[in-house]
Amino acid sequence: MSNLELRELPVVEPEIVPCCPPVTSAALSEADSVKMAAMFKALADPVRLRLFSRVASHEGGEACVCDIQDVGVSQPTVSHHLKKLREAGLLTSERRGTWVYYRVDPEVLATMAGLLAAGR
Amino acid sequence: MSNLELRELPVVEPEIVPCCPPVTSAALSEADSVKMAAMFKALADPVRLRLFSRVASHEGGEACVCDIQDVGVSQPTVSHHLKKLREAGLLTSERRGTWVYYRVDPEVLATMAGLLAAGR
Repeated sequence: MSNLELRELPVVEPEIVPCCPPVTSAALSEADSVKMAAMFKALADPVRLRLFSRVASHEGGEACVCDIQDVGVSQPTVSHHLKKLREAGLLTSERRGTWVYYRVDPEVLATMAGLLAAGR
Repeated sequence: MSNLELRELPVVEPEIVPCCPPVTSAALSEADSVKMAAMFKALADPVRLRLFSRVASHEGGEACVCDIQDVGVSQPTVSHHLKKLREAGLLTSERRGTWVYYRVDPEVLATMAGLLAAGR
């Protein structure tokens, strides 16, 4: 159970330390599973996942709604999906003038990738 | 668009080449987003995610239902979740004698991790 014990230690740099060790190294706690499942749920819709990838791959890691909304659904549906991604903590947003700009949270992305990384 | 063009090239070793470049390097295609969203959906439930992590972290990367079913839900619910994980391609199963053994598909895990990896 040494991996589980390690996770109880104080985190010195929370910005760069993922919440959970890789799934291949330790079973998830109940609390961590709730947190991580909510993140995966945010990516569990094809349109939402495409919007997320459009923000993530956009120049500078940031995109205006105007840059990414052409995904074949209505503008209110795009807004709904972006809200879900924001609520799950996967995107941050900032209004600048007329438009809202979205940015992927690199820490959240690293946390999800880290959980799925092969490692012991 | 060079990244999108690269994805059209014939894949020589499909076993080790993930389906999609990292979200930070290229926007997902509609087809890939459907495929990947289904995988994330399989992990979008806390109990399912815990079962998945229990299989993945079990000795030898393989677990019998008898090893992992103590997650606070009924046995039929455990079976239901394991079926969903199997259907999504995240687990493979094999009956040996009385018990069914589950194993994480490392290629699928690498595909999901690769999509979420930071990279250009």
